[in-house]
Amino acid sequence: MGRTPPHPEVSQFGLQQVLEALVDPVRRSIVTQLDAAGADIKCGAFDMAVSKSTATHHFKVLREAGLIRQHYVGTSRMNTLRRAEMDEAFPGLLDALTSPQAQAR
Amino acid sequence: MGRTPPHPEVSQFGLQQVLEALVDPVRRSIVTQLDAAGADIKCGAFDMAVSKSTATHHFKVLREAGLIRQHYVGTSRMNTLRRAEMDEAFPGLLDALTSPQAQAR
Repeated sequence: MGRTPPHPEVSQFGLQQVLEALVDPVRRSIVTQLDAAGADIKCGAFDMAVSKSTATHHFKVLREAGLIRQHYVGTSRMNTLRRAEMDEAFPGLLDALTSPQAQAR
Repeated sequence: MGRTPPHPEVSQFGLQQVLEALVDPVRRSIVTQLDAAGADIKCGAFDMAVSKSTATHHFKVLREAGLIRQHYVGTSRMNTLRRAEMDEAFPGLLDALTSPQAQAR
């Protein structure tokens, strides 16, 4: 439990912070991959061409904005998309960003 | 006609460019004000606390991303939200960003 990093409550989600997280294409890809998988994905299993330290930074930005929840399973850090909470705070936003039309652009 | 600046076609709209335009709070406010008005607004009539040159830059970024269309009426530069074209390219995106829930955050 001590290794679980802090996460914001839904009441703390801010549109500016969420958009700053989602404007980065690597971070948006992490969100899109989690949404498509419909399941948790461990940090090392994402399709992304960045260094491990850069990836760690991107996960931290997403976590602090409220987009993902992180927890450990053994030595693997697992990532969960906080879809329902995001939908509550920003109805339609993740739907719009993960739509086939948006993905094609 | 010669004073009308260039505008991208819908086929040229890109998600990355649109999000980079919308991540800025002043630019997002311009879009929100146009959406709320449901009518064209001239550059000088927006509620925003930035210099004229900064405002001009923000309008240019929005125009080049495809979010607004600009045209002259006499000496006034008028701004039109390209709502239908944005909705075609990115269904639900402007709805999500202009929703009361998102606005409250």
